[in-house]
Amino acid sequence: MKLADLVKALNVLSDEVNSHLNDLLAGGQPEELYSASSHLIEAGGKRIRPFIVLQSCKMVGGETEEAIPVAAAVELIHNFTLIHDDIMDGDDTRRGSPTVHVKYGVPMAINAGDMLFAKAYEALLIAAERNVSAGMILKLLEKLTKAVQTVCEGQALDMIFENRLSVSEEDYMRMISQKTAALLAASAEMGALVGGGSERQVNHLGQAMNAAGLAFQIADDVLGVTANERVLGKPVGSDVREGKKTILVCHALNHAETPQKELLLKTLGNKSASAQDIEESIQILRSAGSVDYALKKAENLTQRAKSELESFPKTEARDLMISLVEYFVARDR
Amino acid sequence: MKLADLVKALNVLSDEVNSHLNDLLAGGQPEELYSASSHLIEAGGKRIRPFIVLQSCKMVGGETEEAIPVAAAVELIHNFTLIHDDIMDGDDTRRGSPTVHVKYGVPMAINAGDMLFAKAYEALLIAAERNVSAGMILKLLEKLTKAVQTVCEGQALDMIFENRLSVSEEDYMRMISQKTAALLAASAEMGALVGGGSERQVNHLGQAMNAAGLAFQIADDVLGVTANERVLGKPVGSDVREGKKTILVCHALNHAETPQKELLLKTLGNKSASAQDIEESIQILRSAGSVDYALKKAENLTQRAKSELESFPKTEARDLMISLVEYFVARDR
Repeated sequence: MKLADLVKALNVLSDEVNSHLNDLLAGGQPEELYSASSHLIEAGGKRIRPFIVLQSCKMVGGETEEAIPVAAAVELIHNFTLIHDDIMDGDDTRRGSPTVHVKYGVPMAINAGDMLFAKAYEALLIAAERNVSAGMILKLLEKLTKAVQTVCEGQALDMIFENRLSVSEEDYMRMISQKTAALLAASAEMGALVGGGSERQVNHLGQAMNAAGLAFQIADDVLGVTANERVLGKPVGSDVREGKKTILVCHALNHAETPQKELLLKTLGNKSASAQDIEESIQILRSAGSVDYALKKAENLTQRAKSELESFPKTEARDLMISLVEYFVARDR
Repeated sequence: MKLADLVKALNVLSDEVNSHLNDLLAGGQPEELYSASSHLIEAGGKRIRPFIVLQSCKMVGGETEEAIPVAAAVELIHNFTLIHDDIMDGDDTRRGSPTVHVKYGVPMAINAGDMLFAKAYEALLIAAERNVSAGMILKLLEKLTKAVQTVCEGQALDMIFENRLSVSEEDYMRMISQKTAALLAASAEMGALVGGGSERQVNHLGQAMNAAGLAFQIADDVLGVTANERVLGKPVGSDVREGKKTILVCHALNHAETPQKELLLKTLGNKSASAQDIEESIQILRSAGSVDYALKKAENLTQRAKSELESFPKTEARDLMISLVEYFVARDR
């Protein structure tokens, strides 16, 4: 399947999900709160998690009509976590626009994130109007609630790791499994659940998207230092400036020569580091083999995800999911 | 009924709810996140909302066993909103302890609030293990979700009003109805729902606690300028310094003489106002009759709440609720 087919499918489903999201948020009062709540959603985003919900639903033979509210719910959760994470991390731009707290101030941004969190539950409860049973909605709510808790735990670890001199690869993998992969895996599981999939199918799809989610985050770490800044929509090297323990940094701190390691530690988390310091750090990550190591690791995880997906019957939905997983590590932003 | 009986009943139920809250939060990892999440809950609090859930359940003849998870859920929501509100309002102390963001930093406090929000839904889902039907849990989730959205809207209004020169009493009442009364009313409604109450009973209890909640917030506004600072647990006059449009301020700005009004406007929201400026503002609120006006209004709302409650058969639960409503406007903190 070609990338163009994936992009087309993403766009078609985006439109449907966006109109549902718009219904949930339009016209609320006070207007400033609802503008702040909609800002990031309207700034764009690929709607990857809704896509996973809907394709997973199709892969087990379900009706996407019932899965649309579920898709909206995971997207709302994703946007809520991004708004709060951007405050926590002090990030100024996202999707090429100012972040919510930059545009509306930290207090309103905290409140807007909370509103989206609550809207996610409202979205899920709407599934009852589409003939999803109460028992099924409770199962979906349980998955979503557990996923949010896991994301909070991962975000906490990410912040705690910023203050550690070194982080093992095992700790890093646990952190990204919680912070990034958990909601992608939950999206697949929820889609399969609402589609009427068996427990085995739900688990396989969850495992596939967990592996793909780990690969996604590793690719994100790599993009953070290798991407074109204009395409990426945020400054290259900002992870280094913030002291984020990306896989590149974890690897380099465990494998670089002592002088390089010391240079890297000097720049890591140094908010007033110069552009030259950042560039030097990126060179260290490259020369320590950390970029290549990360790319290889992402590739292995992608293969694992694809094998899981290939255990499902060949359908258009399955092939779209495989394309998505390939795209996770082949994107330029 | 004597205040001592109310206090005793509050304490008995607190112990039960606290042990349930502890089960939901104990032992989570990373520890720093769970400590931050538990900090405010462990700092105390009267567990008024759980009490309302449980007494409302009893008032309609229900079993409190089934209502305990519901009680825990509303307390978790309450604490989540307090943690985030304290960040938004820049408050340093609460329940006589440093606020969560003062102790753990703003990023971890945002995350801790999010975790409690998610834990509230986990608490509600646990009700399924106590033979509450899936359909009933969905109804409870809907009430809770709507209440959180309303609280977010009220908090947004509260912040927006800080930047307005004057706020009508009608706007003020809408704001506190959303920010404060909504969760108290939802607690009563949810207790009555899970207890098997009729729609009429659910509505009456909701209306009673809405009126009582308005009285509660007005009493809070009054305490903010008249209380003993040590008993209150936060600085007297901090609302004035933050520029909060309390009922006292709304009334004074609409009724004080021009010179007093101008003096008040100079101090309102002035973060560097001196203790003398604050004291002068409080004197203006008193001399404009705003304190007396607020007390009278709180008293009328309390009477309305009591009339609603008195339409229920006389039981111990009903009398405890009446005592609670009286306590709302008679407390010293």
